[in-house]
Amino acid sequence: MTDGIKKKAFSKNITQKKQIIKSDSMEIDPWDSKEVKNYTKLMQEFGIEDFKPVVEKIPEPHYLMRRGIIFGHRDYQRILDCIKNKKRFVMMTGLMPSGKFHLGHKTIADQIIYYQKIGAKIYLCVADVEAYNMRMASLEKLRETAIEEYLINYIALGLKRRGCDFYFQSERSGKAKKSNAYYRLATIVSRAVTFNEMRAIYGELSPGKIISVMMQVSDILHPQLKEFEKPIPTLVPVGIDQDPHLRLTRDIAARFQKTFRFIPPSSTYTRFMRGLKGGKMSSSDPSSYIALTDNPEEAAKKIMSALTGGKGNIKEQREYGGVPEFCTVFDVWKFHADDDKLVNRIYNECRSGERICGDCKKECAEFLKRFLKEHQRKRKKARKIYRKFLE
Amino acid sequence: MTDGIKKKAFSKNITQKKQIIKSDSMEIDPWDSKEVKNYTKLMQEFGIEDFKPVVEKIPEPHYLMRRGIIFGHRDYQRILDCIKNKKRFVMMTGLMPSGKFHLGHKTIADQIIYYQKIGAKIYLCVADVEAYNMRMASLEKLRETAIEEYLINYIALGLKRRGCDFYFQSERSGKAKKSNAYYRLATIVSRAVTFNEMRAIYGELSPGKIISVMMQVSDILHPQLKEFEKPIPTLVPVGIDQDPHLRLTRDIAARFQKTFRFIPPSSTYTRFMRGLKGGKMSSSDPSSYIALTDNPEEAAKKIMSALTGGKGNIKEQREYGGVPEFCTVFDVWKFHADDDKLVNRIYNECRSGERICGDCKKECAEFLKRFLKEHQRKRKKARKIYRKFLE
Repeated sequence: MTDGIKKKAFSKNITQKKQIIKSDSMEIDPWDSKEVKNYTKLMQEFGIEDFKPVVEKIPEPHYLMRRGIIFGHRDYQRILDCIKNKKRFVMMTGLMPSGKFHLGHKTIADQIIYYQKIGAKIYLCVADVEAYNMRMASLEKLRETAIEEYLINYIALGLKRRGCDFYFQSERSGKAKKSNAYYRLATIVSRAVTFNEMRAIYGELSPGKIISVMMQVSDILHPQLKEFEKPIPTLVPVGIDQDPHLRLTRDIAARFQKTFRFIPPSSTYTRFMRGLKGGKMSSSDPSSYIALTDNPEEAAKKIMSALTGGKGNIKEQREYGGVPEFCTVFDVWKFHADDDKLVNRIYNECRSGERICGDCKKECAEFLKRFLKEHQRKRKKARKIYRKFLE
Repeated sequence: MTDGIKKKAFSKNITQKKQIIKSDSMEIDPWDSKEVKNYTKLMQEFGIEDFKPVVEKIPEPHYLMRRGIIFGHRDYQRILDCIKNKKRFVMMTGLMPSGKFHLGHKTIADQIIYYQKIGAKIYLCVADVEAYNMRMASLEKLRETAIEEYLINYIALGLKRRGCDFYFQSERSGKAKKSNAYYRLATIVSRAVTFNEMRAIYGELSPGKIISVMMQVSDILHPQLKEFEKPIPTLVPVGIDQDPHLRLTRDIAARFQKTFRFIPPSSTYTRFMRGLKGGKMSSSDPSSYIALTDNPEEAAKKIMSALTGGKGNIKEQREYGGVPEFCTVFDVWKFHADDDKLVNRIYNECRSGERICGDCKKECAEFLKRFLKEHQRKRKKARKIYRKFLE
C-alpha cells in the first residue's frame, strides 16, 4: 500500500445495479457493508481467509493485491514464506480456450507474470479435454484458440519461457515419463473420490464431467510428483466459484498424503471484473468486454458507451459526485492501470464531483488505445517466439 | 478338425455339477442341449455368431478353435480376410495383474501366440489402473505381478518381442506422442457416453470405475489411431461376460467414425476352463487351479484329487463309462493337449468304460509334470529377456 491511496476505494464489492440506483445518495456504505458482510460469511463458512492482513507482509505486492481485487486465500502463509525466504514454489493455473482473451482474463495473466517475476515456477494448463468434453468443440480448434488467444497474449503481457511449463491436457508436453506420471495421477485419484462427493460439488454428473474433474485434480497436484518438482508449495489463483473444486483437490491431496506426500495447494481468490454494461463479462457478448485483439478505435467506442456510476446530468454530478464503485469504467482503471496515484486521483475526483463521466471515458479510452496499440505490437513479436513454449 | 475327432466331444458346455450328478446316466444330451440352447439364445440376443462355420475357413485353425473352446464371434470375417490375404491386423487383449497365472490364463496366452505366429500385431495391455482403482492394490505390486506372473509366462509359452506392444495403462510405453494419443483417447471418448448407458452395463458406478471403463475403451481402439497402426481390423478375444464392454466399445467406435475412422473391433468368445473341484477356477483358491509356477509334484497331487466325471466304483465305470464332458481332468486334456488324436482317444476310452479315472489322472499328472518342468525351464530363459518387452 503506497501513497496513502484509500484502501476503501478498492475494497468494495458492488455488483447489483438496481439497489444502488434506488439510493440516490453518495453514502453507499450501509449497502456495501451488507454485501461485504455476506461475502465474509461465505468466506468464513468455507474457511477462506481475508487477504488484506497478508498483503502488508508481501515484499512487493501486486496492485491487484493492494486494491483488494485479490481478496481471499487459503494457506497463503506457505507461499509468503517461500517469497520471503526465496524458496521454490509453483504457481499453477488453467485456461479454458474459448472465445476472445479479454480484460477479465488479463487479471489472471497479470498474476501469472507477477509470480513468475518473483521466482515461482509457472504451470499453465490448457483445459482442452475439459472444453472438448463439456463444450463439444474440436481439439484442433481448441488448440488454435489456446495459442492465438491465450498463449500469444500471455507472452505479449510479459510471460517468459524460462520457468514456465505450458501444456495441453490432451497432450502433456515434456518427456514420456513426465507425461505418463501426469495421466496416471488423473486416473488413479479417481479411486479416492466417491460419486456422492462429486455430485454434491458438481451437480448432475456425466462420464465426460468426471474425467474432466479428475484431470483438473491432476493439473493442480501433478507439479508435486517426483517426475516434476517433488512436493512443493503450490499456489492456485481462482475465482470464488472454483473454490469447491479447490476443496476437493485439497481433500484428495490429503488422501494421497502417504503415497505422494502432497502439500495441500494454497489458493487466492480474485474478484471478477464486471462487463461494460454491468453484470457479467460474457464471451458471447462482445459489447460486454474489451478483447486484447480488439481494434483500439472499436475498444474506445465500447468505453464511450459503457455503464458508469455517474448521475443523470452534469449538474447533479457536480453536486453529488459519482459512484466509482459502481462504474464499469472505473473498473478498467482499477483492474488495469498500475499507477496507484492515478487511480486514487480518479476515485477522489469522481466522488467529489470534480470528474465528469464524459471526460473520464475519453481519458480511459485513450489509456486503453495506448495499451492496446502497444500490446498488439508486442503480440507480433510474441507470434515469432510462441513455439518455444510448446516444446 | 482332423482325424475324425468327434466334434460333439468338444462342443459341450457343462458347468452345473448337481444336475449331472442327479442323472446317473450316460445320456447327457437332453440336459446338454438345453444348456446349449440357452447359450445359443444368449448369443442370438446379443448378435454373437457361432464360430463353428468359421473354423473350417481358417487355414490352420488352433485346437481351441477346432474343439469349440472358442465358440462365438463378432465380425470375424474381417479377421479371416486378413489371415487369408496376408493383410495386417491387430490382436488386442488385456491382463488383470492379480494372483497366479494358471491354466485358465494359458488359454488366452495360447491365442495371443497363435495370432502372433500367423502375422497379427499384438497389443498386450496390463490393466493396472483398473486393478488399482477397483482392487485397491499398489501400482508397484501390480507391476511386479504383471511381469513375474504374466509377461514371463507369455514369453516362456512363445510370445516374441517382435510384433508385440506390451504396455501398462499407468505408463504407456513408446514415444510421448503415442503415449499422449492413447491417454487423449481415453479422456475424450467419455464425451460420447451417457451415464445411464454405462449404468445399464456396469451397474453401480464410481468415478474409479468410469475411468477404468474409459481406459479399456482406449485400450481396444487406440491401435487404430494415426499415431499407432491407423485404422486396422482388430481382434479382441474375450469371455462372454465381457461382451457388454465389447458392445459399448463398438458403439463408441461408431460415434467417433468421423473423427478417427475406426473399424469396429471384432471379437471371439472363449469358454472358461472350470476349476479342479468343479465350478469356477478361482485365484483365491489354489486348489482350484494349477499355476504355471506350481511345483510339478504339487500340481500332480492337485490332479490326483480333482473332480472327475467317473462313476462311484470301477465296476460301474467299466459298465457305463465316464462322462468326460463333466470331468475337470478331461478339461486339462481338452484345453491343453495339442494332440487331437490323443484327446479323442481319451474321450472315447472314457465314455466306453475302457479308461479308469485313477489311470487317467496319473497320465494327466505325468503330462502336466512334463509340461511344467519344461515350461519352468523356459521361464528361466524368459527372465533374461523380458526387459526388452518393456522398452
